[in-house]
Amino acid sequence: MNSGGPQRNVYLSNVSLEEALATWLEALTAGGPMAPGEAETVSVDESLGRVTAAPVFAALSSPHYHGAAMDGYAVRHQDTFGASEARPLRLKLGEEAVEIDTGDPLPPGYDAVIMIEYVDHVSPGEIEIISPATPWQHVRTIGEDIVATELILPENHLVRPPDLAAMLAGGLVTVPVHPQPRVAIIPTGSELVPPGSRPQRGEIIEFNSSLLAGMARQWGAVANACAPVPDDMDAIEQALTKSLAGNDVVIINAGSSAGREDFTAHVVNKRGTVLVHGVRIRPGKPLVLGIVDDTPVLGIPGFPVSAALDMELFARPVILALQGRHPEERRRVQVRVPRKIASPLGAEEFVRVRLGFMDDQLIAMPVERGAGALMSLVRADGYLRIP
Amino acid sequence: MNSGGPQRNVYLSNVSLEEALATWLEALTAGGPMAPGEAETVSVDESLGRVTAAPVFAALSSPHYHGAAMDGYAVRHQDTFGASEARPLRLKLGEEAVEIDTGDPLPPGYDAVIMIEYVDHVSPGEIEIISPATPWQHVRTIGEDIVATELILPENHLVRPPDLAAMLAGGLVTVPVHPQPRVAIIPTGSELVPPGSRPQRGEIIEFNSSLLAGMARQWGAVANACAPVPDDMDAIEQALTKSLAGNDVVIINAGSSAGREDFTAHVVNKRGTVLVHGVRIRPGKPLVLGIVDDTPVLGIPGFPVSAALDMELFARPVILALQGRHPEERRRVQVRVPRKIASPLGAEEFVRVRLGFMDDQLIAMPVERGAGALMSLVRADGYLRIP
Repeated sequence: MNSGGPQRNVYLSNVSLEEALATWLEALTAGGPMAPGEAETVSVDESLGRVTAAPVFAALSSPHYHGAAMDGYAVRHQDTFGASEARPLRLKLGEEAVEIDTGDPLPPGYDAVIMIEYVDHVSPGEIEIISPATPWQHVRTIGEDIVATELILPENHLVRPPDLAAMLAGGLVTVPVHPQPRVAIIPTGSELVPPGSRPQRGEIIEFNSSLLAGMARQWGAVANACAPVPDDMDAIEQALTKSLAGNDVVIINAGSSAGREDFTAHVVNKRGTVLVHGVRIRPGKPLVLGIVDDTPVLGIPGFPVSAALDMELFARPVILALQGRHPEERRRVQVRVPRKIASPLGAEEFVRVRLGFMDDQLIAMPVERGAGALMSLVRADGYLRIP
Repeated sequence: MNSGGPQRNVYLSNVSLEEALATWLEALTAGGPMAPGEAETVSVDESLGRVTAAPVFAALSSPHYHGAAMDGYAVRHQDTFGASEARPLRLKLGEEAVEIDTGDPLPPGYDAVIMIEYVDHVSPGEIEIISPATPWQHVRTIGEDIVATELILPENHLVRPPDLAAMLAGGLVTVPVHPQPRVAIIPTGSELVPPGSRPQRGEIIEFNSSLLAGMARQWGAVANACAPVPDDMDAIEQALTKSLAGNDVVIINAGSSAGREDFTAHVVNKRGTVLVHGVRIRPGKPLVLGIVDDTPVLGIPGFPVSAALDMELFARPVILALQGRHPEERRRVQVRVPRKIASPLGAEEFVRVRLGFMDDQLIAMPVERGAGALMSLVRADGYLRIP
């Protein structure tokens, strides 16, 4: 089977999805290359979508004074005893009742608010009430929402809009967050030309790195794609060396199979360790998972549908872990499948499907199955998993 | 009830959620202030998360030549007739079979690929096969994925990572997208001090605009929050005038109730039309919805929980519509509630809940109900809707 060039290598393994994932994540966890980097401090307003690198504690209470929760009159509750519809009670303004707006601090000594709606203005200097106030009624007491020193956000928390407000209310202006993972993408292939060129026969527009970079960005990473690298072992090794500096994950796109010009496994093997080569899934089978210089390196196949699936299954958990995030499950729905779908023997298949309603039932219709069918990804709403 | 200052205004209406939403969206649709602005052209790589402003058609086919879908040998299918295990067929390399890698263009006249795995290398100049090839087997034919002039993305499509790749593969480098809606946020309140200050008694750190800006940003908008404006009708009117220039939505935060210092409805009424004042929901009741100079203006209450809910219910559909997006439903789940929750008479209540599992059942536990409880938003996983 030797045809002159570098020797065709055989799959080191051809393992199940479960085995591949377990091997991959265990090796990374043991070696530490999935641990978040050194925390950085950002302003609270810049922290949206970032992940806390430490527990966040309040520096101030909120409210930090007793304040009115309603528009009305501040009173001392004991001055209101005995008021009833039968025996309305009058309170002197300025002495027994003080007009107050929502949020205003209660005058010292006052401990309740009567809503404006329940007050009769019987004279310029007096109001009349028909029921007593209970202590602290309609009052926001100190620390009612946040008590200084209280935990506002735990570590490894994805910051959402209310979290911004809670941190500011708790007297904070900055927050320590995990750095965004830097993901290098190395497109390989002598046939690749950059977008915007008019490709000649045999040339292909390089579009995969935009797909992979887009996915990485949506998971919170910064993606750095380099220019296409020709199918040359030294060139790929050089690109890998360059990418290892300053990136937390390196993705070599294509050349991950066992063909004549599939150098990814060779290069990873030369520079580090290949953990997995080949996974029994369809699409996405020709995959290389390895570690070089303590950095996870993924050799991802060239067909875009395979690339997207392998990226989702094997790069996503790493990119999330680097931010201290747990890969929450993708949303699952129960569907009916209008016709039988068989999967190839011995491989778990991920069929791209569109969802729709028929007779009030959610049904999943397969879109084209070819691994090269980029448009099937564009048209699909999700994957149907066939074990 | 007149207490000296500007007259306390009464709710113009106190309508149901459905009525308020219908009035609001109908008025905006009729007047056009929810229509997206003039399309802008961005590079494909910058279009992730943006929304197409026109249908996107392919300029090139993909593939744009017949190419190998597998590593192996290109053949003419008619040369392979009759091959079987009993009668293996030999093909001359260079004449009847040409070694080919995935993605390589087929030599002219060739119309099928035989996978490397199914070939025996019997001599340096010959291969042997044991089954015939069918026409176009393992060949990616021109336009198999994308045909030039084909629709790649419809109008009003939220761009996801595979869409980037499909546009590039289709020979495009730019794409027309709707402009991002610009949302002005005017925090009002003489008691407000900027984050980072040490607030005195009666002063409150201004944190709501970060909450509202964060929400707007997550829905695809650009948020512009100005410095806090004191509770003064002229100052608020001035801030509104300034914000109307260059923004698609204006949010005045607080002062939306009917108290002495609640100027929002007055200002909107003076400068335009108040459509709704007061909605029968809890929290979030004191809400002002209006139109000024063809721009939607929302007066949103000051309590953060009320603010977040009104923002979600009334600003989100407008911000999405300005991008040509339909507000897809929030994810709904069926839950058990461990104890009875009553809602106030005549109002629809949105109770913040945490989700958890108990005996394998998804249960929803209410967190604190107060409208001022920012931490209840931080702790909640969602809303329980009590009609």
